Amino acid sequence: DSSTSRGLGDVYKRQIHKTYLALVRGEVPKNLKKMDNLDKLFCVQCGSQSLILKKPDGDTHVRTVCQNCNHIIYQNPKIVTGSVCSYKDKILLCKRAIDPQKGLWTLPAGYLEINESIEEGAVREAYEEAFAKIQIVRLLATYSLKHISQIQVIYEAKLLNEDIKAGIESLEVGLFGWDEIPWDQLAFESVRWALRNFKERQNSNTFVVFNNPN
Amino acid sequence: DSSTSRGLGDVYKRQIHKTYLALVRGEVPKNLKKMDNLDKLFCVQCGSQSLILKKPDGDTHVRTVCQNCNHIIYQNPKIVTGSVCSYKDKILLCKRAIDPQKGLWTLPAGYLEINESIEEGAVREAYEEAFAKIQIVRLLATYSLKHISQIQVIYEAKLLNEDIKAGIESLEVGLFGWDEIPWDQLAFESVRWALRNFKERQNSNTFVVFNNPN
Repeated sequence: DSSTSRGLGDVYKRQIHKTYLALVRGEVPKNLKKMDNLDKLFCVQCGSQSLILKKPDGDTHVRTVCQNCNHIIYQNPKIVTGSVCSYKDKILLCKRAIDPQKGLWTLPAGYLEINESIEEGAVREAYEEAFAKIQIVRLLATYSLKHISQIQVIYEAKLLNEDIKAGIESLEVGLFGWDEIPWDQLAFESVRWALRNFKERQNSNTFVVFNNPN
Repeated sequence: DSSTSRGLGDVYKRQIHKTYLALVRGEVPKNLKKMDNLDKLFCVQCGSQSLILKKPDGDTHVRTVCQNCNHIIYQNPKIVTGSVCSYKDKILLCKRAIDPQKGLWTLPAGYLEINESIEEGAVREAYEEAFAKIQIVRLLATYSLKHISQIQVIYEAKLLNEDIKAGIESLEVGLFGWDEIPWDQLAFESVRWALRNFKERQNSNTFVVFNNPN
C-alpha cells in the first residue's frame, strides 16, 4: 500500500509536521512553546521526553533532537515503487481493499522495503496485489509528491500471463483496454498521470522519463 | 552527505539490522531471545521498552512493534539525489570534507529532504556542496544500493556558470575534463558508475535511464 503513514508516531506526524516544516523553511513558529505533542514523544535511544526541534551543528535543516542524549530523529521521504503492467493491449489495475481510497482502482504499487532494489519492489508489489508475474521493461516516470514527502518510481512492465487474482490488498483485479479504464474511479491522481505517460510514450519515439505534469 | 546513518538509533541500526533482515526473509533467527539491544530501545509513542519483532496482522513483512501500544516502527530505504553537472566539456566534482571517504572526490549529492522534489534536492545539494547553480537536464540513472537500503537518483545537469567554491561539506571543488578525473580517488563506486553512464549517454542516441551495472 502506498498511502498508509509510516515512521514516527501518528501524533507526531499529524500535529508536529506543520511546525517542523516551518522550521525547515527557516521560520520560527510562534507556537514553539505550545508543542505539547513533541513533549509527549520519547527518544528511541534513551527514552527521555526531551525532544526538541533544533538545527544540529553543521546541519542545514532543523531536526528533532533529544536534549538528553543528542540522538537525532531524521524524517525522510518514502519511496513508492510500482508499474504500468500491460498484456497485449490491456493494462492491469487493482481495486483497493484498504483505505485510503478503498474501492477505487490503482496500479500495483507500494512502499519499497529495506534491502530491495526499486525494480524488485515493483515486481513484488504486482505479485502481492494481483498475483501478477511481471517483467520490468524500463523506467516510465518519477513523481515527487512533495506535500506528503513521497517519491513514486513507476516502471513500464510486461505481464507474463493472464493468470491474475486479487491479493490481500485488492478487492478485485482486471485487465483494461485503454477505453475501458475507469477514469472516474481511479484512486490517486498519480495513477492517471502514469497511465497517460504510458500512452504518451507508446505514441512517441523517446524514452525520456516523465515526471509530475505541470 | 549521502552516507551518514539516519533514522532509528545507531545501536538499533548496527546490531539489530541483521536479525531484522533474517526475519524479513522469513527466517526465525536463533538468537531471538538474545536481542539485548532491541530491549534497550524505547517506543517513540509510549516510551515503553517492549519493542519486539513480529509480523503485524495483514502485513507482508516482520516489523518492529511495541507490545504496549502497538505502534509500528517502519524502516524505509533512503533516497540520495545528485547530479553529474557539466560545464562545457568539464564535470563538477567535490572533495569530501567529512567521513565516510573524507578527502576523496564525489558528485554533488545527498539525502532528499522532506517536502522536496527529487530535482529540487539535486539542485540544493549542488549549491550546498559547491555553491554551484545548476539546471537539471534529464534523469541519468537510478541505483539501488540494497545492502545499505539506499536509492540514488542521479540527473544530468548543466552548470550555469563557473562560479563555484567549496561548501561546508567539501574541502575543495573543481571542474575536470574526462581525462583529468581522479579515478583512483573517487569516494564511492556509484560515482564511477554515474560518470561512466554520463559518458555512455553522450556517445549514444537514447535517453534510457541507467541502473546498477551488472
